[in-house]
Amino acid sequence: MAERTAEILCIGTEILMGDIVNTNAAYIAKELAVLGICVYHQSVVGDNPDRLRESLDLAFSRADIVITTGGLGPTYDDLSKETIAAWFGRKLTLHQPSLDQIQRYFEKSGRTMTPNNRKQAMMPEGAIIFDNPNGTAPGCAIQQDGKTAIMLPGPPREMKPMFDNWVVPLLMKEQKQTLLSHNLHFYGIGESSLEDLLRDMMEKGCNPTIAPYAKTGEVMLRVTARADTAADAEALMAPALAAIKEKAGAYLYGVDVGDLQTAAVRALAEKGLEAAVAESCTGGYLAKRLTEVSGSSAVFQCGVVTYSNQMKAKLLGVPEELLQQYGAVSAQVAEAMAAGVRRLSGAPIGVAVTGNAGPAASEGKPVGEVWLAIDSDWYRETVPLQFFRHDQDAREYIRYLAASRGLHLIWKAACCCPSPQEGERHA
Amino acid sequence: MAERTAEILCIGTEILMGDIVNTNAAYIAKELAVLGICVYHQSVVGDNPDRLRESLDLAFSRADIVITTGGLGPTYDDLSKETIAAWFGRKLTLHQPSLDQIQRYFEKSGRTMTPNNRKQAMMPEGAIIFDNPNGTAPGCAIQQDGKTAIMLPGPPREMKPMFDNWVVPLLMKEQKQTLLSHNLHFYGIGESSLEDLLRDMMEKGCNPTIAPYAKTGEVMLRVTARADTAADAEALMAPALAAIKEKAGAYLYGVDVGDLQTAAVRALAEKGLEAAVAESCTGGYLAKRLTEVSGSSAVFQCGVVTYSNQMKAKLLGVPEELLQQYGAVSAQVAEAMAAGVRRLSGAPIGVAVTGNAGPAASEGKPVGEVWLAIDSDWYRETVPLQFFRHDQDAREYIRYLAASRGLHLIWKAACCCPSPQEGERHA
Repeated sequence: MAERTAEILCIGTEILMGDIVNTNAAYIAKELAVLGICVYHQSVVGDNPDRLRESLDLAFSRADIVITTGGLGPTYDDLSKETIAAWFGRKLTLHQPSLDQIQRYFEKSGRTMTPNNRKQAMMPEGAIIFDNPNGTAPGCAIQQDGKTAIMLPGPPREMKPMFDNWVVPLLMKEQKQTLLSHNLHFYGIGESSLEDLLRDMMEKGCNPTIAPYAKTGEVMLRVTARADTAADAEALMAPALAAIKEKAGAYLYGVDVGDLQTAAVRALAEKGLEAAVAESCTGGYLAKRLTEVSGSSAVFQCGVVTYSNQMKAKLLGVPEELLQQYGAVSAQVAEAMAAGVRRLSGAPIGVAVTGNAGPAASEGKPVGEVWLAIDSDWYRETVPLQFFRHDQDAREYIRYLAASRGLHLIWKAACCCPSPQEGERHA
Repeated sequence: MAERTAEILCIGTEILMGDIVNTNAAYIAKELAVLGICVYHQSVVGDNPDRLRESLDLAFSRADIVITTGGLGPTYDDLSKETIAAWFGRKLTLHQPSLDQIQRYFEKSGRTMTPNNRKQAMMPEGAIIFDNPNGTAPGCAIQQDGKTAIMLPGPPREMKPMFDNWVVPLLMKEQKQTLLSHNLHFYGIGESSLEDLLRDMMEKGCNPTIAPYAKTGEVMLRVTARADTAADAEALMAPALAAIKEKAGAYLYGVDVGDLQTAAVRALAEKGLEAAVAESCTGGYLAKRLTEVSGSSAVFQCGVVTYSNQMKAKLLGVPEELLQQYGAVSAQVAEAMAAGVRRLSGAPIGVAVTGNAGPAASEGKPVGEVWLAIDSDWYRETVPLQFFRHDQDAREYIRYLAASRGLHLIWKAACCCPSPQEGERHA
């Protein structure tokens, strides 16, 4: 199969000026990789027709497919369709179904459609039209002389579903082989140590390939195989997956699970368990991440953010003596908070985080000192963490990683719970 | 002054493949705009010397300054310095101070320096070296024949401080004029309505310029002036700022304040007030955002996440009858939660959020129905929200915007508090 190449060209002065982060390019690049389409260049230009034309010349000199985002809106500086259609020697014509759709969109949201919105229904002649249920600007594709231009709207919440629903099927039509991946999620091991463990496999791997991706505080390994069918790709991957689990299984918290919070919620649900959290320095971050997961209400009833010592004592029953003797940032207080929130909530698992996320030392505890504790009948652990960052993002970093550790503790407690407790609490 | 132009060239297969989002480009672009340096192109290439060379040719054909990120690390595929030095006809030589610094970095973090790390201290001959206190790879700049290449490491927490400490002074040396901005933060008005209010000013504005930036659930207006001195720039901006405040001051929650949580924390601190929060559907998001702000411990003692009805009753004293009669997602329960958390914490302001963030309807309440309430002696309000999104990101969107509304309520309550309460709670 000939290699197909695509370029991603994001159009918008707001991206160029750095006022918004270009998450669209990452989303599209990742999806194209799954389709087995190679991307060697991404670029960004402003809402400027001359530079857009030059960028198109360049992109089509290097790739078969050019995917653009942005510049499909109603205002005078939205010129993507006009410029790209002209590049292919085509005119814009009114696409009545799109105009109807835009009118319905305005009616549904109770707003009046201003005349400039009509511009969004002017589409290149002969283009494939992608309707947009999440906004007003439809997308489209022009296919001509072996070249494909795909135009998508800028807002990610409009772009992503359009990509999934229209672009993937369009590109798959010409795709013979299947590319399949599994993501293995590791916690408690660094990227380079994991690479050391698996070096042989990673170096010799060609099909499947094994690639590590460092995420904040954890590592993901993506195993990818290419074959005629999905079943063949799975068969190619099976021995590699087994070998990775044998070598690094101790750090593996999930396959294709997405993130720690999802792994924790699923593990709790499988055992019919609930967890409650008590937070100081993370200030709600742990609860926030747990409740990101839809369905978390089945495993999470209650969290408390006790930022002051007074509240640690009042809400969680942390003894004043402990707070005075050891300070709020201590093993003893973390343990008392975990036991306290378990008592308060009646949940079988209580987790607590207390620490100093900075920027200043407090009560003699340095920035970056954090204590976590987990409390249950079958599993207890107290964990010290020490972070050494002091830059402008240190506070966010420390809070995020402390919450990650809490999520991992919950996952671990659920996994090692001796027997399903279904019915005990939900009876 | 001749216009100076820069291009941003991010190097890394991880960005190209979409495994990480390119936040570096946005950061650099924004900072360059402040310096008055124009950016017309951003691009991304993988760790591939041929394509990097081509990209350099192209970038320097269009711009005086090329800023790269990534490819400075210790592994064999990190080739930015090698390729860029060769492009200028220069060799790499060992930079002993950098090697010493890398060794110290390893010692400090208790790890052993492997031999491949030496590569990071090999720098282009005659380059200006940027040391890296937050990582191992130093950055550098080559200036030759009117062209400047600036090479920065890929990890944002290393790149950003290096940009601020080294690149800004380097670029400012050649900068004659000063560019100064103020960011005005608005809540409760959409971007297009704000534009309608200020259309005259925005259209005729050239120096200062007035540009709107939509953020999720709010709008920021950036007013920018260019002048010989900062004082002159301020003087140019003053009439525009006054006019904007006159026309849209009702929606303005802060100038250069950054975000709602910072505005809320500052307003509380100014009045010597505290707020406590009770959350259901936001699951800790409101507390998490408040405690992002360093110094929030002075104004925030306690938050509770009562995800279940049982916990709403037990922790906050929400009457069972209210829960049964109106359901957890109701004005009555929001008000009882706000009053409850105020009672529980002793804080003068209590805020509550309860709603359905989806993905499924519950208790007959549709996805997207949210109630907020704020309770204090001088200000009470109950706010219904209804969101109509059902896409894959709707849960995050609803939770974020509900938390934003809570932050704005706290800010409003603090601002309209009749007199400073300093001493009452902190005595």
